[in-house]
Amino acid sequence: MEENKEKQYVVGIDVGGQTSKLGVVDARGTVLAQTIIRTDVYGDDADAFLEALANAVKGIIKEAGKEGEIRGVGVGAPNGNYYTGEVAYAPNLAWAAKKSVKFSAILSKKLGGLPVSLTNDANAAAVGEMTYGAARGMKNFIMITLGTGVGSGIVIDGKVVYGHDGFAGELGHTTVVRNNGRTCGCGRTGCLEAYCSAIGVARTAREWLEASDEPSLLRDIENITSKDVYEAAKRGDALAIRIFDYTGTILGRKFADFIAFSAPEAIVLFGGLARSKEFLYEPMMKAMNDNVLKIWKDKVKIVFSQLKESDAAILGASALAWEL
Amino acid sequence: MEENKEKQYVVGIDVGGQTSKLGVVDARGTVLAQTIIRTDVYGDDADAFLEALANAVKGIIKEAGKEGEIRGVGVGAPNGNYYTGEVAYAPNLAWAAKKSVKFSAILSKKLGGLPVSLTNDANAAAVGEMTYGAARGMKNFIMITLGTGVGSGIVIDGKVVYGHDGFAGELGHTTVVRNNGRTCGCGRTGCLEAYCSAIGVARTAREWLEASDEPSLLRDIENITSKDVYEAAKRGDALAIRIFDYTGTILGRKFADFIAFSAPEAIVLFGGLARSKEFLYEPMMKAMNDNVLKIWKDKVKIVFSQLKESDAAILGASALAWEL
Repeated sequence: MEENKEKQYVVGIDVGGQTSKLGVVDARGTVLAQTIIRTDVYGDDADAFLEALANAVKGIIKEAGKEGEIRGVGVGAPNGNYYTGEVAYAPNLAWAAKKSVKFSAILSKKLGGLPVSLTNDANAAAVGEMTYGAARGMKNFIMITLGTGVGSGIVIDGKVVYGHDGFAGELGHTTVVRNNGRTCGCGRTGCLEAYCSAIGVARTAREWLEASDEPSLLRDIENITSKDVYEAAKRGDALAIRIFDYTGTILGRKFADFIAFSAPEAIVLFGGLARSKEFLYEPMMKAMNDNVLKIWKDKVKIVFSQLKESDAAILGASALAWEL
Repeated sequence: MEENKEKQYVVGIDVGGQTSKLGVVDARGTVLAQTIIRTDVYGDDADAFLEALANAVKGIIKEAGKEGEIRGVGVGAPNGNYYTGEVAYAPNLAWAAKKSVKFSAILSKKLGGLPVSLTNDANAAAVGEMTYGAARGMKNFIMITLGTGVGSGIVIDGKVVYGHDGFAGELGHTTVVRNNGRTCGCGRTGCLEAYCSAIGVARTAREWLEASDEPSLLRDIENITSKDVYEAAKRGDALAIRIFDYTGTILGRKFADFIAFSAPEAIVLFGGLARSKEFLYEPMMKAMNDNVLKIWKDKVKIVFSQLKESDAAILGASALAWEL
């Protein structure tokens, strides 16, 4: 690939429910130019979104002064399929909620044939951590993204696991509570995501506040978010701290099950809720080590993303493009 | 490897708690000569067992008339570690129950330097199914062995997953019942193996017989085994049939979680309990499809080993040796 040797830059795109972030990135993980566009103003018109996205990509390439020097584009998107390049039935993306969109093919065409590689956001985060972050040098780890939902990217022998159909790594939808569990966004009940996402933490707060009269700083807040629970915990609120104990314990128990699967060197955590690490770390570690087989007791690390938060999503997606 | 081209035969060894089976195998999976030796008469003297095993290997190579034509030896053993070649802390092997035995190195030395490749029995079974059996042509599947215990071998992109330390694939020790679960041989509680192994099925029978006065053919049997439950079910015994419904349902639910991990094409079942497929298949399929994410509903197969039972263990282990 003579041609590729001269193309030393990539574009990373993180498609989120409300906004999409994109940037031009070099081999060291420096973001040379970046921008944000809205994702949620195109109704069900996927082509209109992709047109706006392509224009934004061209804009930042120009801004970075790297026209003709881009090797490819990496995209992390909810329900993004690595094999097919499609974004399919993604509840949080209006233009792909009820259909499958040939995302990579359309975007590539709009970018004059620039190669596009797509995967889901958690897999992109895993590649990002392996290339630039906390998982550098690791060949076997499990990335867990604790955001609005709970995503996962599994790396085995240095490669992201895509599985038979490209959809592997949906650990947020393994079952935590078998009977009478909370309803999950996926339509099932009792999923990990229903308890340990940002939304899950807020839900725990509301349920617990209703179930008792225990005083708590959280009682003064109207629409409680996981951030409110974090702020309350930092101020020493006992109920808020117990909510993180509960959340961390559920996570740690499930990590023990995940370890039995792929025997990773580490679990790597990323996402908004992972910022509450001071309250999550100990209950997670304890529950994990209390529940693993003896061979893994005190052997598996839990590490937190080291990527600068504002750049992380772009870097993760961009890392995919180096494989093109 | 000029030399290897002429070496068209391998030896497969399946080390079990009571006996070990070994055979000389050709590239088509034909067993040319085989024998069985006792595993359990050497106390904690690993070297004595390995000496007997080496002699048995030499014996069958001679019997098959393939001296000098053996490429290598593949071994499946409980707690066998692919990376280190050690059998470590295997509760069912007296000579490795409380220590780690350098199995591959010692056996290789006793066989004049013949290369030896070792893994656990379930991983060996997975390689066997991929090479000769129900998983031929599959790149992504999960092997579940339903024997005295519940073992697993996970294949992703055509390769067995060994993980960071060589111990990946312990799905029998993922948690089924979080609180007040049955005690498992591993020292923890609530493991899949405590419910869905041959021993687990017998335990369910005993518990249920005690808990009610419901008439059952099983009431006449003293030390109930899973085979007794199977025989009773075949004769139409309602309680026995419900035991398989219960067992199959637990398995199917866990399969749904496993699918969320690696998105396999199929779950492949092997082992003594898998012979009860006429009673297990439907509840397993139903529970699996009731519990997977929509993207996998009615998409993942459950298949049963197609290897001749008497040869399967030897073939599985022997298949490892082709990679040497």
